[in-house]
Amino acid sequence: MILTHDAILRLDTRQRAALINSLSGFKSLNLIGSISSSKITNLAIFNSVFHLGANPPLMGFIIRPDSVDRHTLQNILDTGYYTINHINELIHIKAHQTAARYPSDVSEFNAVDLTPEFIHSFIAPFVRESSIKIALKFKERIDVALNGTSIIIGEIQELYFPEECWKEDGYLDIEKAGTIAGSSLDGYHRTSIINRYSYAKPDKKLEIIK
Amino acid sequence: MILTHDAILRLDTRQRAALINSLSGFKSLNLIGSISSSKITNLAIFNSVFHLGANPPLMGFIIRPDSVDRHTLQNILDTGYYTINHINELIHIKAHQTAARYPSDVSEFNAVDLTPEFIHSFIAPFVRESSIKIALKFKERIDVALNGTSIIIGEIQELYFPEECWKEDGYLDIEKAGTIAGSSLDGYHRTSIINRYSYAKPDKKLEIIK
Repeated sequence: MILTHDAILRLDTRQRAALINSLSGFKSLNLIGSISSSKITNLAIFNSVFHLGANPPLMGFIIRPDSVDRHTLQNILDTGYYTINHINELIHIKAHQTAARYPSDVSEFNAVDLTPEFIHSFIAPFVRESSIKIALKFKERIDVALNGTSIIIGEIQELYFPEECWKEDGYLDIEKAGTIAGSSLDGYHRTSIINRYSYAKPDKKLEIIK
Repeated sequence: MILTHDAILRLDTRQRAALINSLSGFKSLNLIGSISSSKITNLAIFNSVFHLGANPPLMGFIIRPDSVDRHTLQNILDTGYYTINHINELIHIKAHQTAARYPSDVSEFNAVDLTPEFIHSFIAPFVRESSIKIALKFKERIDVALNGTSIIIGEIQELYFPEECWKEDGYLDIEKAGTIAGSSLDGYHRTSIINRYSYAKPDKKLEIIK
């Protein structure tokens, strides 16, 4: 079926949000951990974390400054550090619940029963129940004038992941680690690998990477 | 296992690219269709398309201007329009092959045997074999000084999708439509829904959305 620009704008607000959020395809699902200057830990689910570059190792995510995300943004700006933690099936319901609008003196770790984990001297909390955890240093905030969102960019400081999921060529088998995928605003999906393929070149047949 | 910032920087370039590309989690997989001012169609795979906002309906993606993506960028800047087409299992190998560095007078549609589809008067080609297709108008290019990448933002003009995949609440069932997910630079995955959950509120139990 066809939806024109006008038909999209005529949709009910929540219908439109659900539809437009479906259109990019499957999404990463991560919990972002941070801590306020008064030492209250914060945890929030994000489905917008993306790869920005490998050298330097940079990751980005989208934030709506006027939303429930505002504690995450404020903490990152105040302390300069945060963590990104992959969501797996065992914790996905708790992860979804972190999106609730808790008062600022409540830690979502307590509210949803996930465990804050402090590693070495890194100031921001990791999620103990997550198997892939990334420590980041805030680098840049880009405000998008078109709709008032911000893109937050950070540089990877340290990585924690299950050794048996790391392949010699550098590929980290996130499916084996239990990471799941998201759709729209509220869909959670397991994955099942089809294949990996060799680097594409003109006139060369692709090979399956075992 | 632990990888420190220094250990990450000491990795071989391709190993590091594969690893860091794994860290955001699962990725959307889309083919971006465009056309040059001399009417040569272009098709390129992107694993970085993201949702930016529903009102106005905006989508973004990341591009490396010095890479094989440069034809896509040039076409978008020249013509102002492009398409985003979901990748399904039937076309995923052809989609992967579009990443090869073809000469500028070769259309990837021909090179990998996918069908350019022109709908109404929209100038950029869709992918006939894709079941979810989005027409976009270029809105903004944001250059990221940290690593020379650009974020390209477009506004949705028209949408095409299978009617039986659209739910009353606005959710588009992209799994039912056959859309697949990506990992790192070369992993392709089918998905299997776990559940959808109700909007999270403090002190309210989540419900499964059927």
